[in-house]
Formats: sequence, structure tokens, C-alpha cells
Amino acid sequence: MVDATTFPTDGYIAESAARMTGCTLRPVTPSEVPGALGDRTAAVLLNHVDYRTGRLHDLPSLTAAVHAAGAYAVWDLCHSAGALPVGLDRHGVDLAVGCTYKYLNGGPGSPAFLYVRADLQDRFDSPLPGWNSHAEPFGMRPGYEPAAGAVRGRVGTPDILSMLALEAALEVWDGVAVDTVRAKSLALTDFFLECVEEYVPEGRVACVTPRAHAERGSQIALRCPDAGAVMERLIERGVVGDFRHPDVLRFGFTPLYVGFADVERAARVLAEVLA
Amino acid sequence: MVDATTFPTDGYIAESAARMTGCTLRPVTPSEVPGALGDRTAAVLLNHVDYRTGRLHDLPSLTAAVHAAGAYAVWDLCHSAGALPVGLDRHGVDLAVGCTYKYLNGGPGSPAFLYVRADLQDRFDSPLPGWNSHAEPFGMRPGYEPAAGAVRGRVGTPDILSMLALEAALEVWDGVAVDTVRAKSLALTDFFLECVEEYVPEGRVACVTPRAHAERGSQIALRCPDAGAVMERLIERGVVGDFRHPDVLRFGFTPLYVGFADVERAARVLAEVLA
Repeated sequence: MVDATTFPTDGYIAESAARMTGCTLRPVTPSEVPGALGDRTAAVLLNHVDYRTGRLHDLPSLTAAVHAAGAYAVWDLCHSAGALPVGLDRHGVDLAVGCTYKYLNGGPGSPAFLYVRADLQDRFDSPLPGWNSHAEPFGMRPGYEPAAGAVRGRVGTPDILSMLALEAALEVWDGVAVDTVRAKSLALTDFFLECVEEYVPEGRVACVTPRAHAERGSQIALRCPDAGAVMERLIERGVVGDFRHPDVLRFGFTPLYVGFADVERAARVLAEVLA
Repeated sequence: MVDATTFPTDGYIAESAARMTGCTLRPVTPSEVPGALGDRTAAVLLNHVDYRTGRLHDLPSLTAAVHAAGAYAVWDLCHSAGALPVGLDRHGVDLAVGCTYKYLNGGPGSPAFLYVRADLQDRFDSPLPGWNSHAEPFGMRPGYEPAAGAVRGRVGTPDILSMLALEAALEVWDGVAVDTVRAKSLALTDFFLECVEEYVPEGRVACVTPRAHAERGSQIALRCPDAGAVMERLIERGVVGDFRHPDVLRFGFTPLYVGFADVERAARVLAEVLA
């Protein structure tokens, strides 16, 4: 079962894995997952935050529902890791993946990560084994024997330059609690919404990100006619967001780097562009 | 069928692919491949140069033998690309892979590459599809439609920093013919062997790399008792090679960067360490 609103690559990979292993892939929206689970469900791949709308899904209750059906819960944390508490261990998540180039600030092409629940690590069977996940990496043995623990998820030589940049990017986290980051993230996105309401002429944009804190990631997505051209003009003026087909302006808020003055300016420039 | 002397990761991946697709994997040494081919052979994965001994395999004749059996020839070029002419198009190779961090000088963790024969590109079916191999990469479509041509071998965001370093590393190739590089490579390795014979006390090392130019890559592998400790001492003195289990000293010669004086010094330091 795969999140029908998933970031596309996740869905393509899920389809490829299903095809290679002879399984059937079923796309289901996250809210409909509990009702769609059954005896034949092996694993469910879900996104913690919808990359388009910024909606935060309920990881604890969805994970519990998946487990109740006897399936594995696999979460994509690209749009939540570094922005809010995730609690993989606490909620018994089985597997998780994510990138480090969004809220972990590693920059474009920064390394991905893999999480394997502690008691599954010695049964984790990677389809991409390599010398760097071998029990004896420099032994160069003809037979594959996976290393103990999560490092068996490695493959070959990692991209050293990107790892070094990520190491530096992660230093800003020293001594920072993720709860504090979450509090600032919500304050920033609340403030952005207030500024947009105040500055942008009525009816020019519609917020597609949930207002409720419990359902919001660290982004605000605004539906807007001609969003592609609008984003181009924003970027020209130093307000860097994304355009998502067909009509979405996406603004990400990285609490360790973005301040309230940045947020106020972003809303003001948006209002000027739409004026 | 997989090269029984392969670089381990290739063998592990071949085994994983065979397991997922229900095929049988058969390890065969390259010289025995022609005699082992049969009706049931689907694909043969071979290394152009043996990473341990430095032996160069005969790509044109092995490819022809594989084709005569109706199978696909897949070559790993990690230890030949950038060191000698390969001629993938000329010899009708079907698929090839390789790294850019050896003779293409991209440094550790530099990006890998994939080659797909031109007339196979539109049938190439990647097990790792992603947004970056989609016909419309920024369309973020739920359905996967591969791009035309070799770019369908891409997956997601490439590691940008490593790509930039590689771009700079490849600039030294502007205006350089690979035949010239090959000629210098052979001259360097010949000269290294002469210096080793001249300086190193008789019987202390035995060359396991073939003497014949047609069977030699761009490395020299010397069998030597206590090779691990010997390589440590060489590296301390600035002669950087590899130790390969159980008793091999491996020296790589990158013609665009290594000169004859470096080679003479490496042999001299080796003799001093072994004295």
C-alpha cells in the first residue's frame, strides 16, 4: 500500500519493488489507510508531511493501525525531519527514509538516510548490498555477509564532499531541542498566514495547508492562479519558494535559519507581486 | 553469469538482482566465460580490469562471445575508464557501469556512471525509477513515464557538490586523446616494474599483473609478505597505494597526474621499506 499523494519518486520505487517481488501495489490516501488495511497488506509507505499541501499526517495512529493489520509501517520523513518531533522509536515505526537537504539543511543532493527499527536490524535484507554494508568492509570477500545493525543499509563509497557539507550543516543542531524548533516553526507559519491575510488582496490566494497545528508541517502552500509566473517574480526579489503543479506556491520555513522579519518581508513581497 | 573475480559489490548486487528476479547466478572466471555460455545465459557481468591483479580482460572478444550466445554483455569499467581506450560503441557493449573516482580523478565518493547501448535505451527498464528520470521531471506526475535516452538511468537529485568537483576534474581531459593517456600509462607501469627490479632485493616481491601490454590495466599489483604493514609504511612516506587481502600491494598510475619521477621515487621508497 502506498500513499496516493506521495512524492512521486516514492511511488515509482514502490511500484518497481512490487513488480520485482510479485506483490500488488495499492495507492490509498493517508486518511483512508486504516479502512483499506487487510490481511494481505504487507507494508504501507506513507509521507509524514504531504510535499504539496504541507499537511502533517498522524504518524502514531497510522502506525498503530498498520501494526494492527500485521503490516510494516514505512515513513518518508523528507518534509518533517529537522522541523518537528518524529518519535520513530517511541511510536514503533518499522522503517523510515528521508533526505537531509530540506529541514536538515544539507543542501541540494545532500545524503539520504535510512532508519530500521532496532529489533528488525538483524533481519533487514537490503536489495542493494555493497562492500560498505559488509560485516568486514575491507575484507573484499566474494560472499556477502551483512554487518550487524543499521549500517547494513549502506552500499558503496558515500559521496564524501556532500557528507562533509552535511556534517557542518548538522553542527547548528548542537544543544538545540527539536521541540523548540517545532514551536518556532509553528510561530513562523502562523505569522506568515497573518501577514498574508493582512497584506495580500482578498481572494488572490487560498491556503491549502491545514490551520490546525497538529496537521501542519513547516511549510505553507498557497493556491494561486498563474502560480508559476508568480514564483518566478518572487524568486527574482529574493523570496525563494517552489512552484508545484498546477497552481501551488510552496514556502518552506527552516526555523534555525529563518526569522520573523524574513517572513514579514516574504508576505509583503508576495502582496506587491500580486497587486 | 558473473565474473568470479569481480569487485565484491558487483557480485553482491548481481546475487541480489538474481534473487529478486528468480534467476540463477553463476560465478565464472573471465577466461572461462566463453566455454560456460549457454542457451540459458541472460546476461554476463564482467570487470574490464581485475581490481586485485590489474589484469585487463579482452572486452571485444568476450563481448562477441556473449552476443553469440544471445546474452547481454555488462562491463564494469571502474578500473579502465580514463586509463585506456574502451570502445563501448565500437564493440557493441550492451550495458556498462563505472566510477569516476579512480582514473577519472573525481575523488572518493565521486558519482558513478551508466552506459546503455543506443538502440537499447528506449527499452531500458530501471529498477530505481525517480523524478529525475521521468519524461517530465518537474511535472511530479503520479504515473511513471521514463525519459527518452540514457537519462532514464537517473533516479533523484544527484549529489551536487560531488558533481561540481567531478566537472572540474574532467576539465583536464579537454584536448587529451585517450590513446596518448594509454601510451603514458604503459610507459609508467613498465618503468615502475624496471625500477622495482633494479632497486628491490630479489625475491621480496612478485608481480601479479601481466607483463603483456594487452593484458595490463593501469596498475601494478605486487605480492609481498606482510603487505598490510608494508603499505602503511609506504603511505607514511607519501607513496599512496592500497593493500588488498591477503598479500597484495596495489599501485595505481593516473597518467594525467603521475610522472616518471614519482614512479622512480615510489620504487625507491618501496626498496627502502623492504630493505
